[in-house]
Amino acid sequence: MAFDTRHLAELADHDAFIRRHNGPRKDDSLTMLSALDMDSVETLIDRTVPANIRLGRELDLDPPKAEAEALDYLYRLARQNRVARSYIGQGYYDTYLPAVIQRNVLENPGWYTAYTPYQPEISQGRLEGLLNFQQMVMDLTGMELANASLLDEATAAAEAMALCRRSNKKSKSNAFFVAEDVFPQTLDVLRTRAAWFGYEIISAPADTLAEHDVFGALLQYPGNDGRIHDIAPLIDAARQRGVMTCVATDLMALVLLKEPGALGADIVLGSSQRFGVPMGFGGPHAAFFATTDKLKRSIPGRIIGVSRDARGNTALRMAMQTREQHIRREKATSNICTAQALLANIAGFYAVYHGAEGLRTIAGRIHRLTTILARGLQQKGIQLVNDSWFDTLRLTGVDRGKILGRAMTHDLNLRYFDNGDVGVSLDETTTAHDLDALFDVLLGEEHGLGVRELDDGVVADQASGVPAACQRSSDFLNHPTFQRYRSETEMLRYLKRLENKDLSLAHAMIPLGSCTMKLNATTEMMPITWPEFARIHPFAPKDQVAGYRQMIDELAAFLVEITGYDHISMQPNSGAQGEYAGLVAIRRYQAAQGEGHRDICLIPSSAHGTNPASAAMCSMKVVVVECDDSGNIDLTDLRAKAEQHADNLSAIMLTYPSTHGVFEAGVREACEIVHANGGQVYIDGANMNAQVGLARPGDFGGDVSHLNLHKTFCIPHGGGGPGMGPIGVKSHLAPYVANHVVTPLDGVEADSGAVSAAAFGSASILPISWAYIKMMGARGLREATELAILGANYIARRLGEHYPVLYKGQNGTVAHECIIDIRPLKAASGISEEDIAKRLIDYGFHAPTMSFPVPGTLMIEPTESESLYELDRFCDAMIAIREEITKVENGEWSVEDNPLVHAPHTMADLMDGEWTRGYSREVGAFPSEAVKAAKYWPAVNRVDNVLGDRQLICSCPSIDEYRD
Amino acid sequence: MAFDTRHLAELADHDAFIRRHNGPRKDDSLTMLSALDMDSVETLIDRTVPANIRLGRELDLDPPKAEAEALDYLYRLARQNRVARSYIGQGYYDTYLPAVIQRNVLENPGWYTAYTPYQPEISQGRLEGLLNFQQMVMDLTGMELANASLLDEATAAAEAMALCRRSNKKSKSNAFFVAEDVFPQTLDVLRTRAAWFGYEIISAPADTLAEHDVFGALLQYPGNDGRIHDIAPLIDAARQRGVMTCVATDLMALVLLKEPGALGADIVLGSSQRFGVPMGFGGPHAAFFATTDKLKRSIPGRIIGVSRDARGNTALRMAMQTREQHIRREKATSNICTAQALLANIAGFYAVYHGAEGLRTIAGRIHRLTTILARGLQQKGIQLVNDSWFDTLRLTGVDRGKILGRAMTHDLNLRYFDNGDVGVSLDETTTAHDLDALFDVLLGEEHGLGVRELDDGVVADQASGVPAACQRSSDFLNHPTFQRYRSETEMLRYLKRLENKDLSLAHAMIPLGSCTMKLNATTEMMPITWPEFARIHPFAPKDQVAGYRQMIDELAAFLVEITGYDHISMQPNSGAQGEYAGLVAIRRYQAAQGEGHRDICLIPSSAHGTNPASAAMCSMKVVVVECDDSGNIDLTDLRAKAEQHADNLSAIMLTYPSTHGVFEAGVREACEIVHANGGQVYIDGANMNAQVGLARPGDFGGDVSHLNLHKTFCIPHGGGGPGMGPIGVKSHLAPYVANHVVTPLDGVEADSGAVSAAAFGSASILPISWAYIKMMGARGLREATELAILGANYIARRLGEHYPVLYKGQNGTVAHECIIDIRPLKAASGISEEDIAKRLIDYGFHAPTMSFPVPGTLMIEPTESESLYELDRFCDAMIAIREEITKVENGEWSVEDNPLVHAPHTMADLMDGEWTRGYSREVGAFPSEAVKAAKYWPAVNRVDNVLGDRQLICSCPSIDEYRD
Repeated sequence: MAFDTRHLAELADHDAFIRRHNGPRKDDSLTMLSALDMDSVETLIDRTVPANIRLGRELDLDPPKAEAEALDYLYRLARQNRVARSYIGQGYYDTYLPAVIQRNVLENPGWYTAYTPYQPEISQGRLEGLLNFQQMVMDLTGMELANASLLDEATAAAEAMALCRRSNKKSKSNAFFVAEDVFPQTLDVLRTRAAWFGYEIISAPADTLAEHDVFGALLQYPGNDGRIHDIAPLIDAARQRGVMTCVATDLMALVLLKEPGALGADIVLGSSQRFGVPMGFGGPHAAFFATTDKLKRSIPGRIIGVSRDARGNTALRMAMQTREQHIRREKATSNICTAQALLANIAGFYAVYHGAEGLRTIAGRIHRLTTILARGLQQKGIQLVNDSWFDTLRLTGVDRGKILGRAMTHDLNLRYFDNGDVGVSLDETTTAHDLDALFDVLLGEEHGLGVRELDDGVVADQASGVPAACQRSSDFLNHPTFQRYRSETEMLRYLKRLENKDLSLAHAMIPLGSCTMKLNATTEMMPITWPEFARIHPFAPKDQVAGYRQMIDELAAFLVEITGYDHISMQPNSGAQGEYAGLVAIRRYQAAQGEGHRDICLIPSSAHGTNPASAAMCSMKVVVVECDDSGNIDLTDLRAKAEQHADNLSAIMLTYPSTHGVFEAGVREACEIVHANGGQVYIDGANMNAQVGLARPGDFGGDVSHLNLHKTFCIPHGGGGPGMGPIGVKSHLAPYVANHVVTPLDGVEADSGAVSAAAFGSASILPISWAYIKMMGARGLREATELAILGANYIARRLGEHYPVLYKGQNGTVAHECIIDIRPLKAASGISEEDIAKRLIDYGFHAPTMSFPVPGTLMIEPTESESLYELDRFCDAMIAIREEITKVENGEWSVEDNPLVHAPHTMADLMDGEWTRGYSREVGAFPSEAVKAAKYWPAVNRVDNVLGDRQLICSCPSIDEYRD
Repeated sequence: MAFDTRHLAELADHDAFIRRHNGPRKDDSLTMLSALDMDSVETLIDRTVPANIRLGRELDLDPPKAEAEALDYLYRLARQNRVARSYIGQGYYDTYLPAVIQRNVLENPGWYTAYTPYQPEISQGRLEGLLNFQQMVMDLTGMELANASLLDEATAAAEAMALCRRSNKKSKSNAFFVAEDVFPQTLDVLRTRAAWFGYEIISAPADTLAEHDVFGALLQYPGNDGRIHDIAPLIDAARQRGVMTCVATDLMALVLLKEPGALGADIVLGSSQRFGVPMGFGGPHAAFFATTDKLKRSIPGRIIGVSRDARGNTALRMAMQTREQHIRREKATSNICTAQALLANIAGFYAVYHGAEGLRTIAGRIHRLTTILARGLQQKGIQLVNDSWFDTLRLTGVDRGKILGRAMTHDLNLRYFDNGDVGVSLDETTTAHDLDALFDVLLGEEHGLGVRELDDGVVADQASGVPAACQRSSDFLNHPTFQRYRSETEMLRYLKRLENKDLSLAHAMIPLGSCTMKLNATTEMMPITWPEFARIHPFAPKDQVAGYRQMIDELAAFLVEITGYDHISMQPNSGAQGEYAGLVAIRRYQAAQGEGHRDICLIPSSAHGTNPASAAMCSMKVVVVECDDSGNIDLTDLRAKAEQHADNLSAIMLTYPSTHGVFEAGVREACEIVHANGGQVYIDGANMNAQVGLARPGDFGGDVSHLNLHKTFCIPHGGGGPGMGPIGVKSHLAPYVANHVVTPLDGVEADSGAVSAAAFGSASILPISWAYIKMMGARGLREATELAILGANYIARRLGEHYPVLYKGQNGTVAHECIIDIRPLKAASGISEEDIAKRLIDYGFHAPTMSFPVPGTLMIEPTESESLYELDRFCDAMIAIREEITKVENGEWSVEDNPLVHAPHTMADLMDGEWTRGYSREVGAFPSEAVKAAKYWPAVNRVDNVLGDRQLICSCPSIDEYRD
């Protein structure tokens, strides 16, 4: 029987979630509107969003579902995935995420809702977690330096290639050598990246490296087929020829294998997935990236470093964070902005919990089981490609059809090579029972082998698949952190201690302009740890992932409707990846039209630094378009430059609403100008959350946009990643989006290369965005956008009486964020935007975005999820701070001694026996009633950035440091 | 193929969990042993546990399973339960636990590992949660007072009956009236309780109440068949005759129904299960219990009250907590010790999150759907027993066989009455689609009814099943707490704020003697929220609960092996319930032997107060047996009294190891003495954790023991419940343990009454204990016991140099806990055990057990889960405190002004502009390096107990109070 659900609305509460996601109650909205002298949200929106881009109808989405309904539906999808035992390997391995880490990190909003640690004073917990990750990578790889993660192994390899090119200034070659036995998906991404950089890729057997004139080389250790070569001589020979070498490797293998640092590698990279992070149909996982000390100023991504705070205590911070937003812009060879912080933390905690001893047990067991398997197969006359192995065997000359049939019966997945070979990779979850099943599958049931007897032989012979020259002899993870937390109780307390050092959305509003720290609802987060989503290999057969495919298709359909594009490519696993993938699609499309020469990319001066970096990575020439005094694109300048470069115009990249937080009235005209001059329009989706349900970039001129699912669509920031950056494209670009060598995609040109290691990027977090859209429906999504705009305007109004607000639209409203100008105040008082940011910590808040897009300003974005109570609490704090600045201005407090320059205040400050400051302890640490009721304490005083940059230390401090 | 797992041990890590559960590493154990001048754990155990009770072999349990293996196995069991749509009702209803509460409370160790809030300064978070629960109950029931939960509705009814008896001193009657339409399981428990109190139960139609001479009466509103009577006239008439009235009711119904307080009830009780707590095959859920103000000094269980702290700020505390341990002992009519704190908190948060508005929507929808259902059935000529309803209909004269068949096809459960009637209860999860299925089942598929059309009629007629006289007109939940947290973001922050006020195992060791705060492992906790365990009705058909049954049988088999008993009764849902159930079994057994006159219960003077209370509830006469100077049972006195009372001796209740923390050498002899004189031996299992794997009560003389699964077997304390208290019995007692009216149990006499509302007590938390035993295996369990004893002896040794240690065994060792005597110190310095307890908070610890079993002492129990690091941190703190006391003794600090009497120190203290104390801020709040590195702040200063007892306020303070 079918229901008219509208009629029966009172018999169900399908839209209950809208009221949970959106912060303001109805009364609150009226209060805010009245502060704006407006009578309705419609009036506000009419005044804010230009009429010529308004959607003019509700989005065509399914009616919203209540939380339980959405979970029910999604669970039905999830069960269409089949969780088979996976022996596919190829960079992805089943693993056990320790339950104490799962519950208290991955499933804990105290961890997953935190923001990137730009404010180190309130981020010491996750900074320590990331430092553990770096230390673990350095120890296992034997390198001098490691960053705090990249997106995946394949893009890490691409970053390594680019790092070689920009560091190896002596080499005249434009070619990069890739050993034949690197994973196919790594080669796929390298080819894409190289093509648009203009490098040549030489793929050949590793031992031919010496024959090629290249600027750098990538070797894999162990190789794609599981073999372990002693690559030290190759690396040594390369170095003598001025060729830099990168080694892709596996952290678990390195427990037993000689560390690449000892082999002489310049760069070592790989995935840390198997350290406790579920395969999740491809991600998210943290890639690692380690280098020699020489390369420390060029390493891509984030590095956590050790510095000191104002009291001289050890304090962690993100070193070189300025590179993030301003990465050499037009000369950039990397556009990477984010990391996989949450996953890097998990991998690091996995190492902390197991310690060297536990890792040796795990790696030793994997290897011994593999050795038993190899021995059994060899006894039965099976021919192995391997003369050496850690966890992977490649069988050749076998009857692949029969094996496939038996594998299906046993519900297990093997790797099938194109030439008919069969691969088996074991992992932490493999048991002796599994070996028995594997023998049955690989040999047929009459094999007569006994694991016990085989093991007797292995033990007696001290058999190993690791060549003597490749066996590890060095220690690792000797730091006390990797030794102290072996019982669950100690581990739990460690995790809680770190959590409680940090400020997250579980404490307070995080009003970061351009970063959209909205609710990450629990219901949205629940599915990601369901085994039906978590334990799926990215290269599992298509019939095992029907649930994933349908969920992804549905999400894509939602996004098509929301953006007005025709097709969504789900591969890019970060916003910057999305930009890159979008520009590549444009260039490939133009090439197909015989217009491959078009290489001019127009970028407004207000753009995010990632835009020019992305353009540079596609060998585009950036031409800057000026903005007018109101911060809008100067259409005259745009027209002039578009016409000037009409013959070579490839694209414009613009952000909408602009990075200044304004709905520019001329956006449609800007798009028309570019189109009229032969260019494509890339609309940066960073601010899509201000448009959903009100306007669609695909309607007003965009050809392609990336969508930050971690901003607009509720994927949590995870303390600095994961993110997801799918792109929406118009149909003419659809054939030119990324494809994938292992998982060919329908409707995409076969020769489209991959941009990420897995076909659907970080697929396992897509249910978050799916659930958000499903539970909000068209009305909920529109209301969210309206409330985000309402909140920003309310803040602009309240703060506008105390601080100058920069940039408004033509009717005096802002979009979803507002910028307040601190420069005049600083000139008058000596108090800087940084002082205000740090002082906000004393009031219990994370700072707004500092000095972006305009130096000397703060950009505030409330999001729709914050209640009026919280918006007012924030405004009250900002106003109180303004009054404090007044006291400095009028001399009541000196410029050197006031609660702003000493902020943030710590417990250590209060402990001081003698208090010699010109204000009281209470004024310092408890400046508001709200804080007295619930105080958040920063773990350290203001951190010394200069020191941290000067002496880059990115390993765990000795325990004595902590004692200081 | 079968494996010899020992041979292949290195190929698996089945016992990995043992190293996670137990805190000390191997080296640590050696360090501790060496401090004791011992060479091995065996030596320690030989010196500690009497040879004549040693087990002498390893327990016969399956080999341990690793965490993932145990979960896999359990998940296979779970899937043997079938989650059908439940319309059974009868006190249990499906419900939606809001995800934000599930993740951040039920699945969060910050909440579930907390202890009962005896130390209010470090418990303000959960005390506020419980106060919310009380306020919600008071508002919905319209009563003046509510406690912070009881175990279940049936035992709450039994407590109400006993409260009537002890409060209604004027009534000469010994009879209690129970309306015919109370739930059968409630009547079942009442009959058991009444029989052993010596009361008569009169079960008759409610409207015959006036015809009976009784001291009290229980009415149910709405009744068992769903009807709603206006019971005001009955209550009024009863009051005039001096009869007290109790009303069992349903919180969801009360949203629409006139509140029982307005009807004149003296006591109102029921279950809060449907406020977000999963059915869980019977529990745990929080029962509520509300009374008039007159009864405030007699109310059973815990009441949270509002008091002030040393700075005059509002502070919450458990009022009347002294009743807990010392409940009138031999005259007790209640032995209740614990509550269902975690579940009460969840139910309270459910109300906070929904508010009155949300509850009205939910209750209104349930009622409207029920009305539609009633109308449709009536249209089709079905006869309803109901002339009124909230959510339940009883159909009569129907073809039950056909309905049953169709219900099975539709996978839904109805209630089947003995007389052939069929019951249907709707709940929060019922949808219009469900109604359609219900019509199909109840009427057959050709019914032609349309929910939409029926609803049209309901709306047009403003139809309602609630009689006009019974409709609610009063408001509820007007307190701001129930209005402010409606968005998920606000709710999350509220929950996190409360969590962070409290000290739990996630922060530090909780060294509570007799309370065993060991690890509650994440893996053990995971299964309880699986829908296959959570969404099962306790009265679901047996074929739907095969997984539960097998899990329970396996757990029972483990416990049989561990205790040496022959049978386990899983019904008692707390330790005190277990005591009661065990004594009832003894009395019933003796009665069956024609020795029902035996009513003397010997109890050593050192016993826990619950023992005599339990005996009194079985109408036993308590005879106290003296202890000697070493705290051991005086065997001479025991023999004398046993012989003196030989003709009437029923039982002895003894605790082993004793409450003094000693393995008494004479335990076997004590048991023999009692047996020789015709008595049974009840061994209190509170300290079973000191015996597991070393000795078995069933072997050395016990006939029955209860087991505190929430102490020894890892069920978390939940901030004061849930618990589980199954009993082990020898075979002669097995037929006499509790049975259940709805779920008859095999091997138990049919006329055995129930002691709890559900046949298997709080079944949904049994997987915790199952998983613990499964993952530890025999060796792990034994090692845990050994390490618990080692830890206690290590502490006794370290602290013994600074404090006198009371009570040791004959070889100078203690068992699993030790008592330090503060009385001499107090005499010398004026510093009390309470000062030390509060001062420990400044050092970041929960206090040990205070003044139990000996006034003026502290009893310390480390458990096996604490690392040596943490044991030393605790000892260091205690030793530092001893040094502080020395400073008071020698006059360096005055008795009135020192950090001990001012403890605990709060942020508010540090904020004070002027610091006038005789010690520094740093000494006050940061007395150790460990605290400086990670400070836990108590939310309030020392709480005024006297004020709190004098003016009992147990509703939420007005918001202005919070502002003070």
